[in-house]
Amino acid sequence: MDVAGEPVLPVVVPSTALFTDHYELTMVQAALRGGTAHRRSVFEVFTRRLPEGRRYGVVAGTGRVLDAVENFRFEEPVLEYLRAQRVVDEPTLRWLADYRFRGDIRGYPEGEVYFPGSPVLRVEGGFAECVLLETVILSILNHDSAVAAAASRMAVAAGDRPLVEMGARRTHELSAVAAARAAYVGGFSSTSDLAAGFRYGIPTVGTSAHAFTLLHDTERDAFVAQVDSMGRGTTLLVDTYDVATAVRTAVEVAGPELGAVRIDSGDLLLLAHRVRQQLDELGADRTRIIVTSDLDEYAIASLAAAPVDAYGVGTRLVTGSGHPTCSMVYKLVARADGDRPDAPLRPVAKKSMGGKLSVGGAKWAARRPDADGTAEAEVVGTGPVPPELAGHRVGVELVRGGRVIGREPLDVPRDRHRRARAALPLSATQLSAGDPVLATEYVTP
Amino acid sequence: MDVAGEPVLPVVVPSTALFTDHYELTMVQAALRGGTAHRRSVFEVFTRRLPEGRRYGVVAGTGRVLDAVENFRFEEPVLEYLRAQRVVDEPTLRWLADYRFRGDIRGYPEGEVYFPGSPVLRVEGGFAECVLLETVILSILNHDSAVAAAASRMAVAAGDRPLVEMGARRTHELSAVAAARAAYVGGFSSTSDLAAGFRYGIPTVGTSAHAFTLLHDTERDAFVAQVDSMGRGTTLLVDTYDVATAVRTAVEVAGPELGAVRIDSGDLLLLAHRVRQQLDELGADRTRIIVTSDLDEYAIASLAAAPVDAYGVGTRLVTGSGHPTCSMVYKLVARADGDRPDAPLRPVAKKSMGGKLSVGGAKWAARRPDADGTAEAEVVGTGPVPPELAGHRVGVELVRGGRVIGREPLDVPRDRHRRARAALPLSATQLSAGDPVLATEYVTP
Repeated sequence: MDVAGEPVLPVVVPSTALFTDHYELTMVQAALRGGTAHRRSVFEVFTRRLPEGRRYGVVAGTGRVLDAVENFRFEEPVLEYLRAQRVVDEPTLRWLADYRFRGDIRGYPEGEVYFPGSPVLRVEGGFAECVLLETVILSILNHDSAVAAAASRMAVAAGDRPLVEMGARRTHELSAVAAARAAYVGGFSSTSDLAAGFRYGIPTVGTSAHAFTLLHDTERDAFVAQVDSMGRGTTLLVDTYDVATAVRTAVEVAGPELGAVRIDSGDLLLLAHRVRQQLDELGADRTRIIVTSDLDEYAIASLAAAPVDAYGVGTRLVTGSGHPTCSMVYKLVARADGDRPDAPLRPVAKKSMGGKLSVGGAKWAARRPDADGTAEAEVVGTGPVPPELAGHRVGVELVRGGRVIGREPLDVPRDRHRRARAALPLSATQLSAGDPVLATEYVTP
Repeated sequence: MDVAGEPVLPVVVPSTALFTDHYELTMVQAALRGGTAHRRSVFEVFTRRLPEGRRYGVVAGTGRVLDAVENFRFEEPVLEYLRAQRVVDEPTLRWLADYRFRGDIRGYPEGEVYFPGSPVLRVEGGFAECVLLETVILSILNHDSAVAAAASRMAVAAGDRPLVEMGARRTHELSAVAAARAAYVGGFSSTSDLAAGFRYGIPTVGTSAHAFTLLHDTERDAFVAQVDSMGRGTTLLVDTYDVATAVRTAVEVAGPELGAVRIDSGDLLLLAHRVRQQLDELGADRTRIIVTSDLDEYAIASLAAAPVDAYGVGTRLVTGSGHPTCSMVYKLVARADGDRPDAPLRPVAKKSMGGKLSVGGAKWAARRPDADGTAEAEVVGTGPVPPELAGHRVGVELVRGGRVIGREPLDVPRDRHRRARAALPLSATQLSAGDPVLATEYVTP
């Protein structure tokens, strides 16, 4: 079934252009033939609602979107595949061969919060060049923003204690890399995933697994081997057999300089207290306690009063803590009213059943503050921006005439997110289900 | 934050060896230094439970695991990264540079069903060479099996009607490719994802989006453009404005030879009946009806009596219909009792709190049939296989001495899954929550 006819690396594809739904290409073909392919068009990414009970959304993946747009090329192997499968005709293949996105993209900067109706991304250019980007843009934003939103809630719950992303084994191997990145934006400090370290420079950390203890004839042998190799600052896993015995052995082997112990099972609240007391009695009062057993934001919050120094989070983080995807859509909201180059833009929107109504027209957004500077509304509008909102616009230029101008180091969206969350009403930090903390107001001319 | 210092394709990593948790490498370092790295070891992949209410699990991703194991190499850029970040020491880097998996892997063949405790995969070799594979093997199996399980339930609900995978925009762009593959194994017929077509030869299909209709001055213009370009056999999207008007226009434009219409919103049950009647009255009695609005297995089942010809499924498929990951773990279950080459294997298992008990020892599995040939129990054992079960073993060789021998075209696991599901008790096809349809029995010497 492998088209290339030989085993290939499962991670190598020639270009991000393949991350595209079949129908994007056939629409391009029909529009090219019909003469409408180059009508100036505005597509917007937005969501009609937040996941049930969530107070705010977190934009993540913007940097990956920019990479994807820049690398969206139809190289020869891809064209050959499309030809062999008769996906599109020869004129369309010729157009695809020359494809580069030459339009403009602006949007909420990465790390920013968003609400229902927020115009998270705006893609503007010819219809065909813009519609082609739909699938990959939504893939990235829907996945990464889901993980970042979960990470942000966990970061709120964890307060000043660091969070380690450890979910690689629970999600697709490349999702895991993007998840580690999104978790970092949302407030995590490090990851277990080496690919995320390699690709994005996120600090990687690790402890050891039960298998390492079980490999040895005794737990002591395992601890000696680990400390001998990794130093006294290492983290020893203490729940393979009996926790109290393991903690005593750990301090005997490493001394009070032992870096940390990890607890991966059992009643974490009780165990953390017991282990802290035991460590203190053994003189290891600077040895830290790391807990890692199926944590989510609620479990983290419930450990706030426990003597825990760091949390490792896996499954629930990379699966968006119950919401593994956002419901962002990519909709045509305006297009040239005719084929003349100076044709004005005309708002368009689907009108149909099922609550899928969209608001037509290219939109601006502003976050209106109250007198104390706390955000009180997400204002989304078409037409001119009211003067009192001019200083509170949300959105930046990301791509101008096909050239990426919005790239930034990953610490920038991470810091931005912390600030954006802090500017929301305090109820944003409540983990309980509720309405979005900002209502979206629409302003139309 | 990009270590390489320049923008790179987000999809290119040098090797699957990077899809690995930090601690796997530090455990290798400690074991190399401690002299235990090459103790013969048996790791098993299994799950302690199925997702809440599910009747059976579906093994998927095995073929991708084989690719990942084959490509698990530490090339110079990766070694350089590990050195720069001081992840491991120089002796370990030298060992990694020569790394090839030279052990054995056997397991449930792809497409097979599984139950709590089923030894889905067994990896045997030296401790270090096996422990390194943990993360990437679990990433693949946990993701792909979750999607395949959802796909299988949807295939049961759909009966003979084809299912189209359309979820690329709802999940990470490379998860999407693996999801399309897993969905095919679970019973889907085609995908919208071009990368899945390119990589795995899965048939790709597409219709058109609301944007295409909105691009045109009238719906009729859009239909004319699409039919002119794609032919009368195309699928026209009929819910941008008024469905009844669109259906009439569609048949006027394409004639009764119109291939299909797609409905993407509204009350699908009602609309399908109305549209079918309208199409029949217009003479388009062979025009098919495709529905695609946020479907899951329950929505598909509820449309069984409706005149629907095919289902397109997105979000709920690629997110595992409520269970986006499985809880498969990779555990050391036996290892050499000492360092002599002929040392016997000794069963090992973590003993601790929190219900995380594991059964030690390398296991075989058999699916015991009743007198009618229907499976009645999943039998998992250590020690000799009872003679009456010898003909009912589950599990095949996949890798022998590092050489992949279990690769197969994707239609094979797809057919296998259909047969395996058909051999289960009829309650496996119930969508309602319940216990696994087979109980797992343990046989120990």
